[in-house]
Amino acid sequence: MPNEKSFIDLIRDVAKSPAARGLLDDAAVLDIDATRLILTSDTLVEGVHFRPTDPPATIGWKLAAVNLSDLAAKGAQPLACLMNYALSGDATWDAQFVHGLRDALDTYAMPLIGGDTVAMSSGAPRSFTLTAIGRATNAPVPARAGGKAGDILYVTGPVGDSGAGLALLTAGQSEPAALIDAYRRPQPRIAQGQILAPHVHAMMDISDGLLIDAGRIAAASGLAVVIDHIPLSPAFAALHGPQARLRAATSGDDYELLLAAPEHFASPVPLIPVGRLRTGSGVSLILDGAPVALPERLGYEHGGGNP
Amino acid sequence: MPNEKSFIDLIRDVAKSPAARGLLDDAAVLDIDATRLILTSDTLVEGVHFRPTDPPATIGWKLAAVNLSDLAAKGAQPLACLMNYALSGDATWDAQFVHGLRDALDTYAMPLIGGDTVAMSSGAPRSFTLTAIGRATNAPVPARAGGKAGDILYVTGPVGDSGAGLALLTAGQSEPAALIDAYRRPQPRIAQGQILAPHVHAMMDISDGLLIDAGRIAAASGLAVVIDHIPLSPAFAALHGPQARLRAATSGDDYELLLAAPEHFASPVPLIPVGRLRTGSGVSLILDGAPVALPERLGYEHGGGNP
Repeated sequence: MPNEKSFIDLIRDVAKSPAARGLLDDAAVLDIDATRLILTSDTLVEGVHFRPTDPPATIGWKLAAVNLSDLAAKGAQPLACLMNYALSGDATWDAQFVHGLRDALDTYAMPLIGGDTVAMSSGAPRSFTLTAIGRATNAPVPARAGGKAGDILYVTGPVGDSGAGLALLTAGQSEPAALIDAYRRPQPRIAQGQILAPHVHAMMDISDGLLIDAGRIAAASGLAVVIDHIPLSPAFAALHGPQARLRAATSGDDYELLLAAPEHFASPVPLIPVGRLRTGSGVSLILDGAPVALPERLGYEHGGGNP
Repeated sequence: MPNEKSFIDLIRDVAKSPAARGLLDDAAVLDIDATRLILTSDTLVEGVHFRPTDPPATIGWKLAAVNLSDLAAKGAQPLACLMNYALSGDATWDAQFVHGLRDALDTYAMPLIGGDTVAMSSGAPRSFTLTAIGRATNAPVPARAGGKAGDILYVTGPVGDSGAGLALLTAGQSEPAALIDAYRRPQPRIAQGQILAPHVHAMMDISDGLLIDAGRIAAASGLAVVIDHIPLSPAFAALHGPQARLRAATSGDDYELLLAAPEHFASPVPLIPVGRLRTGSGVSLILDGAPVALPERLGYEHGGGNP
């Protein structure tokens, strides 16, 4: 979407504050007095980020979860959030949305402290914004940049489940539940992010796909990345077989953490190595010991001030 | 809108943190370490908060200004903001919007540090959200509650210009510029808010109309309010004559500050007295020495987590 890219270039020219990190990171990092705040805001639009038929409670959950995932990528502790809600015109739908939102906020201890409610004209797509405020738990705050040549790239869990869940729903299916849930109720890695932050050279959350996001860490770090393993869940492998690894690595919405750390790094939390950073540029892929051509589409290309 | 009210009741039940101030104030007040943050977020929707034909630069300005006005009501210093932008599908329109936004952010020294960009389906109403973060400059932070019986109610400037500007635009007129500008380029009272904060018992910004907002200060303070003066600008008075005072006091979008302070208060900034708080409840109106029946509609009733 050239329109989207040129708009973000425009906005980047406005957002010159160092806190904006050039709009190239998952969140803004704002120092106030002795406190380092992490701020992120994501909007979910019906038909773009969720399906009109998704249960409203899962949309409320997801609105909180995608923002929490950005905090997780910074190793931040959630402090508070504000929500901007466009009334759906259906009070039962709205109540179910709030129920799911509340579930996520309680689970991750992020109090709702404000926001706004607006009425949209009937027929307009539903659209919801949440702005999350966290506190950095580590200095320096992990960024996409910072990876070193020789670092191993790790993920906190398998990829592809959410994309598989979306494909099932699109085909009118509602099983297996593990894949549907991965799409509808992503689990932001808040605890892992805080534990890992002091140990990593670079970190982000996988929102657009393992390949495209690994490429972003490499590019931000001025390096190349070789991906040599794509971890699949049992549910994904049972459904699609191991030959669907490329699909798993490009479908996005995973919300696992992706991080670069030294080779002999003793991780305090379970991690799966997926590749390595090296000098150079670009993304390459080696599966079962042999180079594999990259798919044309490395992941989901979306907009976003702080993507 | 019963749907809107019942939704806000639902949300209020979620937003139990003291920082939320019961969603009854203009902004949230969040203490982090030794810093007291003021947070507010407003969404502007095409056809609701601005006219589809308004110049895009003025919509960008207004998005920043309405949020800055909430910071002003708390006597806060702007620190940063995040914007969630729904692409209009028209790059020139988007660029003009950003130009106006930037103008306001530069004028009030509020850096843009992040946000999100989304593409809406074509034909969907434009919708923009800005979340502003400020720092309290005074303890206690002014609230709507806190007014005392006997306090004088003051405003920082005349009311009604913005509503008059909107009425002119609706009638296809574009003069006088002072009234059109009041609607399109409101001037948040950031400097006044900071100077006044240490001196007031209660403060808010007039977003919905002098009468309804004065009633909110009275209700939050457990008091009654008598309004005995409705200050008009020369441009308003020239257009509508002094008999249009009730219209000026109910049209909203003024973004002047409304505050309660002791009778013999020596204000550091120019203020216009408009009434008085007294024991009891409700709003009453005395003009030219005689009681006047309240209009049926006291102002603009809108939603809003933090209205």
